[in-house]
Amino acid sequence: MAAVIVTVMLIPQSLAYALLAGLPPETGLYASILPLLAYACFGTSRTLAVGPVAVVSLMTASAAGAVASQGSIGYLTAVVALALLSGVFLLLMGILRLGMLANFLSHPVVSGFVSASALIIILSQLSHLLGIRATGHTLTEMTAALLASRSDIHLPTLLLGSASLLLLWWMRRGLKARLLRLGLSPDSAALAAKSGPLLVITMAIVLSYGFDWQALGIAVVGSIPSGLPLLALPGFEPALWRDLAASALLISIIGFVESIAMARTLAAKRRQRVDADQELIGLGAANLASSVSGGFPVTGGFSRSVVNNEAGAETPAAGAFTAVGIGLATLYLTSLLSYLPVATLAATIVVAVASLIDLKVLRQSWRYSRSDLYAALVTMALTLLMGVEVGVLTGLGLSLMLFLHRTSRPHMAVVGQVEGTEHFRNCRRHKVILDEKVISLRVDESLYFANAGFLQDRINSLLATSASITDLVLMCSAVNDIDLSALETLEEINHQLQEAGVRFHLSELKGPVMDKLQRSCFLDKLSGRVFLTQYEAFTTLAQGIAAHPLPVLSK
Amino acid sequence: MAAVIVTVMLIPQSLAYALLAGLPPETGLYASILPLLAYACFGTSRTLAVGPVAVVSLMTASAAGAVASQGSIGYLTAVVALALLSGVFLLLMGILRLGMLANFLSHPVVSGFVSASALIIILSQLSHLLGIRATGHTLTEMTAALLASRSDIHLPTLLLGSASLLLLWWMRRGLKARLLRLGLSPDSAALAAKSGPLLVITMAIVLSYGFDWQALGIAVVGSIPSGLPLLALPGFEPALWRDLAASALLISIIGFVESIAMARTLAAKRRQRVDADQELIGLGAANLASSVSGGFPVTGGFSRSVVNNEAGAETPAAGAFTAVGIGLATLYLTSLLSYLPVATLAATIVVAVASLIDLKVLRQSWRYSRSDLYAALVTMALTLLMGVEVGVLTGLGLSLMLFLHRTSRPHMAVVGQVEGTEHFRNCRRHKVILDEKVISLRVDESLYFANAGFLQDRINSLLATSASITDLVLMCSAVNDIDLSALETLEEINHQLQEAGVRFHLSELKGPVMDKLQRSCFLDKLSGRVFLTQYEAFTTLAQGIAAHPLPVLSK
Repeated sequence: MAAVIVTVMLIPQSLAYALLAGLPPETGLYASILPLLAYACFGTSRTLAVGPVAVVSLMTASAAGAVASQGSIGYLTAVVALALLSGVFLLLMGILRLGMLANFLSHPVVSGFVSASALIIILSQLSHLLGIRATGHTLTEMTAALLASRSDIHLPTLLLGSASLLLLWWMRRGLKARLLRLGLSPDSAALAAKSGPLLVITMAIVLSYGFDWQALGIAVVGSIPSGLPLLALPGFEPALWRDLAASALLISIIGFVESIAMARTLAAKRRQRVDADQELIGLGAANLASSVSGGFPVTGGFSRSVVNNEAGAETPAAGAFTAVGIGLATLYLTSLLSYLPVATLAATIVVAVASLIDLKVLRQSWRYSRSDLYAALVTMALTLLMGVEVGVLTGLGLSLMLFLHRTSRPHMAVVGQVEGTEHFRNCRRHKVILDEKVISLRVDESLYFANAGFLQDRINSLLATSASITDLVLMCSAVNDIDLSALETLEEINHQLQEAGVRFHLSELKGPVMDKLQRSCFLDKLSGRVFLTQYEAFTTLAQGIAAHPLPVLSK
Repeated sequence: MAAVIVTVMLIPQSLAYALLAGLPPETGLYASILPLLAYACFGTSRTLAVGPVAVVSLMTASAAGAVASQGSIGYLTAVVALALLSGVFLLLMGILRLGMLANFLSHPVVSGFVSASALIIILSQLSHLLGIRATGHTLTEMTAALLASRSDIHLPTLLLGSASLLLLWWMRRGLKARLLRLGLSPDSAALAAKSGPLLVITMAIVLSYGFDWQALGIAVVGSIPSGLPLLALPGFEPALWRDLAASALLISIIGFVESIAMARTLAAKRRQRVDADQELIGLGAANLASSVSGGFPVTGGFSRSVVNNEAGAETPAAGAFTAVGIGLATLYLTSLLSYLPVATLAATIVVAVASLIDLKVLRQSWRYSRSDLYAALVTMALTLLMGVEVGVLTGLGLSLMLFLHRTSRPHMAVVGQVEGTEHFRNCRRHKVILDEKVISLRVDESLYFANAGFLQDRINSLLATSASITDLVLMCSAVNDIDLSALETLEEINHQLQEAGVRFHLSELKGPVMDKLQRSCFLDKLSGRVFLTQYEAFTTLAQGIAAHPLPVLSK
């Protein structure tokens, strides 16, 4: 049952994403047969529906378009090579257990990238909806191309495109509710709504055939070779591979990130686990299968997987049955599909990807964290203006840099005892007991090369402002690691404090950090002590004065 | 007094580093006049001695050698452009307050890079010591060049080189002690030892002149134009600038890192502060001054600064007087310097940079932290084999990646109460009280996009192994930040736990993190509570069972 529904969704989608990737429609079908079988054998998710997806198809068009022009033999060769390379990269990453790589793309970056890609995809389909020729990979290129050929708009195509769009939109939004009101069971209503695209496409085919729309100048898909894909090893072309390697790597990573996020969400709903490394191997096998059967790069699709899951797919067999369904379509339906107007196909793409535009993340990050907002905005802007590859790479670099910048200037607080407890809190936020001679400084970050100098500066300025101190306690409850550069800085600090007649103590050191310090000679040189708890440190050192706690600071 | 000593050291060094940079000797003198005055006006360190230094000179030779061959006019133009670009980059970084950039080069990387550069410098001087022609920028290139021309070794040069080397070595190691034993005051003994290179060079000049060594085939420095440098604006050559920009940026950064480390050490000894951003402006001005007076990139030198400091330099005036000293040398000593044998000059370089080779960091990091060791070794190996630029860039990238890798798989511990206290410790390291129904998990890292998935996996496997739990407390004492991706993961975890009938609590949240969370709607959705302390969380949640603490685990 799940396989039937997914097949019904996948037929129009596979044709549409082939169009988006700049390929003949049959390649979309080819990319939906063997890859599904391969994933069913090697993947771990029981419900992920693999096949052509929008963003990866867009990236494929962008990468292949850089080495050959759409429609040429070279373009087809490039696409097959991209699938091959993506497959190899994914397999390699899986074997090297690099599944964690997916974590390095932060959610705002991925979200900004996907939204911008969806906008580019919609723009790219406008030319099909208007019946004009206009191509490009960025917002500016496409807007310019559309404006340049605005006088060529083909009215019948425009009418057909708009009608398809409205019908699909209504089916997506209003059909299910209407069917429910007509008395259908919720399951059948949902199924009928999901088959909306197939219904619209069938209607368009029938009308196109009946009224000979092609004679009106409306572009149709045209003849599609019938029959299963021929298996063929991709050609050995090292020069082409070198040119495409970077793009293929990006396609693999983006495809994997999308797919694993989907697979994890689905697995969590069913309390199953997904193994990221095995998942890489599954997707790698799927892409290799795609390349040997003349397809293009594939990955786990969002909408189809949700449907697959809701329709009750329990085992990978659902994927295998879907492959059989697409295989049958390739054998028996291609002559019908040739009458399909391209404008209707473009309309299905527009309606499908419109839901990918998600500006919620912008609102959320505006409130929650500005650095995440900037990362999302920059990724979005660069994807729109400079293309998908520049966008995602900059986003990746930016989120790493923002993280490093954050950790390089850690939050630090002078802490004091919360009266009557064993707890110590920031003296600027809480009413706490401080001591004139003992300063306790809590550093809220692991100490490493990028922030060790910052700590040293802070301690120096603390010393400069308080002449009477005799002991400085560094509270390390938030220090999860101390690297060699930071260790050397601590040695310097210890030395400087010693010269100034101040003892240097540590408190609340974590087990793993303590283990590391014991392998160096720092603890022998330390002028003060290492206390298990900050409470112990404070009571020991401030003993003489604890009786009459003097300066109680509030915010 | 300090200025006299530094001048005495700087004359041979400036000639030697000009040789190392592949430039005529007078450029070394030029680079030691105006830049010193410029730094005295704009820099913050009172004792840093600016001028040509070994590593930056090597990088200059490598960068200029890539666009023109040594000795050509193009080479000189390239060197002046490098000084100009370095100056501009340093000024820009200073104005943009990017002084913190220096922190991103970890100590093991810098140390590995400097040691490898010193080795390359020594190898590069071997050809001068042997009287042969052999150039190259990497270990393999130079070894091959030396081996290829081994039959050309010039015996008189070899003898002179070895003698100079031995004499300099002895002056550096043994002279001071010998003078002390002869009854000199420590100060005069130190001064005499520091002027060793000038002494050797003076002797070599006298002997070279007296015995006409040039006739023996021993290479001498040759005629040096006398007089102060002519000021001239560097030519406007955008194409050359584009080619050199990346190298100039690296030279600026490496120069700055070396210089700021030195300035900080010296300032700390005197309880002064160095402003990194102002320091950038000072070094930028020095490099611009170098470029308009026909010099090459300069930065703060190690050995000269130490001497400057020890000799009692109190104000930047010491630098200005040194400039006057070098200016006088340029006016009156150049005819004498022309007799100086190149082999003697090469010997002063070898002896000076030998002290830069520091393998201590390898031993230290071997014991303390393997990832620091790998970063140092890779930087060292790549600097030797692929050249200075590849080496330092890889080192930089590698230390960032190792840091990210470390934080992406944070240490986590199930914690329990230390009996009779309010403290909670790792149940695998300490004897603690646990509760069957309440699990407390401490995560020892800020939560961000790269590790949020890891936390989710850990919580999932905790849930899978303990069916009886009703409450999960995430102890956040070490969580210094939660970014948007991690927040979304926490929301997912909360949702998943809720479905499994487990309440999700947080404890020990830091002030800044709590502020951020309150700006999102996460706390409203949270199925459990936020506790100020872990003790409060444990006693509240485990109340029913606290009376008979059951499972006490030890390691």
